[in-house]
Amino acid sequence: MPDTQRVTLQDVRDAAERISGAAHRTPVLRSRTLDALVGAEVFLKCENLQRMGAFKFRGAYNAASRLRAEQLAKGIAAYSSGNHAQAVALAARELGTSAVIVMPSDAPRAKLEATAGYGAEIVTYDRCTEDRVAIGEALAAERGLALIPPYEHPHVIAGQGTAALELIEEVGELDALVVPVGGGGLIAGCATAAKALLPAIRVVGVEPEAGDDTKRSLEAGRRVSVPLPRTIADGQAADIPGELTFSVNRLLVDGISLVGDDHLRDAMRFAFERLKTVLEPSGASALAALLAHRVDALPRRVGVILSGGNVGAERFAELLGR
Amino acid sequence: MPDTQRVTLQDVRDAAERISGAAHRTPVLRSRTLDALVGAEVFLKCENLQRMGAFKFRGAYNAASRLRAEQLAKGIAAYSSGNHAQAVALAARELGTSAVIVMPSDAPRAKLEATAGYGAEIVTYDRCTEDRVAIGEALAAERGLALIPPYEHPHVIAGQGTAALELIEEVGELDALVVPVGGGGLIAGCATAAKALLPAIRVVGVEPEAGDDTKRSLEAGRRVSVPLPRTIADGQAADIPGELTFSVNRLLVDGISLVGDDHLRDAMRFAFERLKTVLEPSGASALAALLAHRVDALPRRVGVILSGGNVGAERFAELLGR
Repeated sequence: MPDTQRVTLQDVRDAAERISGAAHRTPVLRSRTLDALVGAEVFLKCENLQRMGAFKFRGAYNAASRLRAEQLAKGIAAYSSGNHAQAVALAARELGTSAVIVMPSDAPRAKLEATAGYGAEIVTYDRCTEDRVAIGEALAAERGLALIPPYEHPHVIAGQGTAALELIEEVGELDALVVPVGGGGLIAGCATAAKALLPAIRVVGVEPEAGDDTKRSLEAGRRVSVPLPRTIADGQAADIPGELTFSVNRLLVDGISLVGDDHLRDAMRFAFERLKTVLEPSGASALAALLAHRVDALPRRVGVILSGGNVGAERFAELLGR
Repeated sequence: MPDTQRVTLQDVRDAAERISGAAHRTPVLRSRTLDALVGAEVFLKCENLQRMGAFKFRGAYNAASRLRAEQLAKGIAAYSSGNHAQAVALAARELGTSAVIVMPSDAPRAKLEATAGYGAEIVTYDRCTEDRVAIGEALAAERGLALIPPYEHPHVIAGQGTAALELIEEVGELDALVVPVGGGGLIAGCATAAKALLPAIRVVGVEPEAGDDTKRSLEAGRRVSVPLPRTIADGQAADIPGELTFSVNRLLVDGISLVGDDHLRDAMRFAFERLKTVLEPSGASALAALLAHRVDALPRRVGVILSGGNVGAERFAELLGR
């Protein structure tokens, strides 16, 4: 394994042990209709049914639970467009400490409310003019909090990888794994686990067309930034891959498929009407890529991460009423 | 057991064996938020994740699969406000025969489309002026079809009871079981299984306030009709209990809770936002009764049947946009 890959299957296994009992072992959904539509056997890993409604709890809890007791007692902090915020807030509550979360002022209502509901203090910023990393770091330094980044941390990446580990443990051999890409933490962890367990597996990332920074970066062989993405996939509005996540993904990710907002809407509707399950736009992106036939040469057995379901009923109605 | 009870636990067990492989063994959902809100341990049996999206497939398949081969080859027929239509249509397809379904012309679009999608021929009628039983029976006689009624049949009732059988097999002891009531087939089957397995269990039915025919009938000790119910719970718009179902339910059902349309909306929203699962109004009624604290003296461990999730995305948005 090259030196640059700083997360291993053992790290993911350790994370799985650590989050066991705190995180849900989420169900794997099948659908005959979906299989017929895409011409493959599809296994849907339902991270929308994870605690706080998204995979993010895996990484946040794994990272927070590894802090020294003195540090944990001082509290933790995070910056996030939404789901990582809720994840850190819930992890703090579960571990008996406090959390301060830096969130964009235009984050979805459901996510702001849920984060506050877990007892966290929320500090908002303007996504277009302010730098969340700078705000988060200043705040953490000032108050002595441990900052848990949304993806640029080996414990976060290893935690997210447990989603793929569980999926493969449950369904066995897979020919491909299709994973949403925002900052790249979920796919970095999932690819680490999947490629170690099934060396022949193809790992495909899915980004919104408007935010194809990881696709461009993989093609360029270095991190490339794109203009701030305008997409309904608020969890995937990254404009540049993480340094750590990209160092993993450039080695392990086989390709990136792109989906437009209408593909995301179609996938959310399909999930609602046929699977009876709720997906937020980002959470539907991997499914959207399959339904839109945006994944080339789809093999027989395909794992898909449904990464989150945090969308309010009104926002859902608004999104689908195009 | 009194003579009047024409369905037994053994019938439910036989049905379970017969539908195994064709029907899904649906998952049981838990929610810490829900438990905290209602002050009990709640086990949600997800029949919205059943094939065709509702419990109805259990009874329809069980009944159809027991027809003589010559009869099955001639085809089957049904009258239904929606989910039983889809259930019979899908059962026919699975068993290699044809189906004719008599449906109200104002049935939800999603249900009409899905029924046609399973390959059935649809005959519509006016719910306010025409008699679906008469139309169904005439049609069946004319074409030599076997009519599978939505609830007035021991094989249908036994099939629906497999939902409770599976739930109790999976989670063990329950103090109460809360079940939506339309024509009374689901609760008759579920109560048969539940009371035989757990004699101390309390079985509570839930009806819409506008369609409280079973509640009134149980109180009167005989079948009582109510004016044609106006409710968003289209699957529970019965105006009089079935003769057979009532003969079972009067012996086994301990009480009926009523819910209004707003309770149903609240429960659908709760299921969407917190459970990430899609329920149609009728399918949410048992959950609604719990959330609205309409079930008296709620004991510790409570089973709830989420009976169906067939609602289009637009209709869902419309229902919640009060």
